[in-house]
Amino acid sequence: MRVSVIGGSSVPPDTAAVAEELGTELADRGHAVVCGGLGGVMEAVCRGARRAGSTGGDRGGGTAVETIGILPTDRRADANPHVTTPIATGLGHARNALVVMNGDAAIAVNGGPGTLSEIGLALAHGRAVAGLDTHDVAGVEAVDSPGAAVDYVEAAAETSAGP
Amino acid sequence: MRVSVIGGSSVPPDTAAVAEELGTELADRGHAVVCGGLGGVMEAVCRGARRAGSTGGDRGGGTAVETIGILPTDRRADANPHVTTPIATGLGHARNALVVMNGDAAIAVNGGPGTLSEIGLALAHGRAVAGLDTHDVAGVEAVDSPGAAVDYVEAAAETSAGP
Amino acid sequence: MRVSVIGGSSVPPDTAAVAEELGTELADRGHAVVCGGLGGVMEAVCRGARRAGSTGGDRGGGTAVETIGILPTDRRADANPHVTTPIATGLGHARNALVVMNGDAAIAVNGGPGTLSEIGLALAHGRAVAGLDTHDVAGVEAVDSPGAAVDYVEAAAETSAGP
Amino acid sequence: MRVSVIGGSSVPPDTAAVAEELGTELADRGHAVVCGGLGGVMEAVCRGARRAGSTGGDRGGGTAVETIGILPTDRRADANPHVTTPIATGLGHARNALVVMNGDAAIAVNGGPGTLSEIGLALAHGRAVAGLDTHDVAGVEAVDSPGAAVDYVEAAAETSAGP
Repeated sequence: MRVSVIGGSSVPPDTAAVAEELGTELADRGHAVVCGGLGGVMEAVCRGARRAGSTGGDRGGGTAVETIGILPTDRRADANPHVTTPIATGLGHARNALVVMNGDAAIAVNGGPGTLSEIGLALAHGRAVAGLDTHDVAGVEAVDSPGAAVDYVEAAAETSAGP
Repeated sequence: MRVSVIGGSSVPPDTAAVAEELGTELADRGHAVVCGGLGGVMEAVCRGARRAGSTGGDRGGGTAVETIGILPTDRRADANPHVTTPIATGLGHARNALVVMNGDAAIAVNGGPGTLSEIGLALAHGRAVAGLDTHDVAGVEAVDSPGAAVDYVEAAAETSAGP
Repeated sequence: MRVSVIGGSSVPPDTAAVAEELGTELADRGHAVVCGGLGGVMEAVCRGARRAGSTGGDRGGGTAVETIGILPTDRRADANPHVTTPIATGLGHARNALVVMNGDAAIAVNGGPGTLSEIGLALAHGRAVAGLDTHDVAGVEAVDSPGAAVDYVEAAAETSAGP
Repeated sequence: MRVSVIGGSSVPPDTAAVAEELGTELADRGHAVVCGGLGGVMEAVCRGARRAGSTGGDRGGGTAVETIGILPTDRRADANPHVTTPIATGLGHARNALVVMNGDAAIAVNGGPGTLSEIGLALAHGRAVAGLDTHDVAGVEAVDSPGAAVDYVEAAAETSAGP
């Protein structure tokens, strides 16, 4: 499935490390990544997902992992280098709705107001949301590791009709 | 100034009463209302604002109060009857960004995931946010009456450059 | 009714004069104006509409004329000074869809690619379109005066259900 | 490069055949396709592009061809079956801006008002536009075959900085 990963565009190294591990975990289990295409958590999760794809990871190698970056700007070139499919929108923060709409579920890592808006939009669109050290709001399942986050969204996807 | 009022589209009577009182308070102090144009808190705040305008309220009567409804649909006719200026967008939840962008500050009344997304978007756009019985998140000033909510956003507007 | 007026953001004086006369004609007949909120045709039509409102024009004076400016930027302050209701969108050219969606019909004055896109979007939304010295495309009724343009959109509105 | 292909969502068989041939031509020359993701020209061009990828075409086979479908709805499942990367937007016609923004150039095949709007938006974004039996408007290079259309946009891309 496709999983939206949301989080801050400028984060400390340990948060980036968690996001990168999450990207690898998602790719190893065969899930594509959707994000906002910029830096911080968005860049780290894409880097992790692509690293998994390039080495084969636990998947035994093969098909490259797709990382979709839905950008606030109107320039594809603004995407971080680990995005395989940049989508320019020119919509500013309104593109946050598209980031969560294009995943079957969402995982939030840390983040500020923009991430909070994406959590709200994900829930408004009926998506399951797992949270790693992020906003403590109703509807977000707080988990303590990337693996647990992926477990949660996989289980949620099985019990929903999907988009 | 213009104040964005955000909240649930289907709310219990006591919440609607608070929103209506908030609308009257805003209008009495000469502030235009921006909202999502639909029912619940959105309808109640517009009704309160227009009632103030029609009777003159504490303002001594006169100029009608503008209530802008920025709709998720592409039909102006979907606005509640107390919206003076319906704006159709056809953007779905992505219009939430426009609701908060068009106010100088925001006041949240109760609300679910959609309101949470608007709180996040308001903060991301640098708007002050007062909250009446709404989500408990960092950056939202919890207040206990419509008057205190308007006091807060008026004070915040004075200390910011504004849009 | 509301009429969307579309046209170039930088136009020669004679085109601006036509747009200004169009604004006055619309206001004198009691129609609100919707436009993109910036300069050129957008500014001239708003100036004409507000001038009519301020002097009373043929209407015998009274109610102020509303001029809605739906901006591509996220700042209301970017609107020209004759816009009574600026709506910031931050959507760039994607806001063109909102400009024509918010009128019951459209009138194009001159204009380049942006105006061409608005003509297409207006027709796609089922709006009647009159054209004054604009793109010669199927579906646009070419007229030779502001009065004829307003006649055309008034007649079209009578025979359609409206939005 | 990426090429936006725009055209009607319901077209006669001969138009669909031209669009399919165009898709194959683009894929054979290594270009990804961006379109609106629905039927008619959008489906035919994706089918042609994917057929080329599956047989190897003149490219000698290999890497699959990416076909991006930027949908007006909020459901990825609305994409035609030949879209490899569906992007839901929920923006209605406002998504037309994204369709052309995400290509380095555009090719229009036939089409009605929606296509006209995309031509205008493409030109407004500074993209070169080739036209096959489409609207006769300034800025569109009329060509008489899919090969000539691709020749034109390839040449245009070489002489521009690109996005």
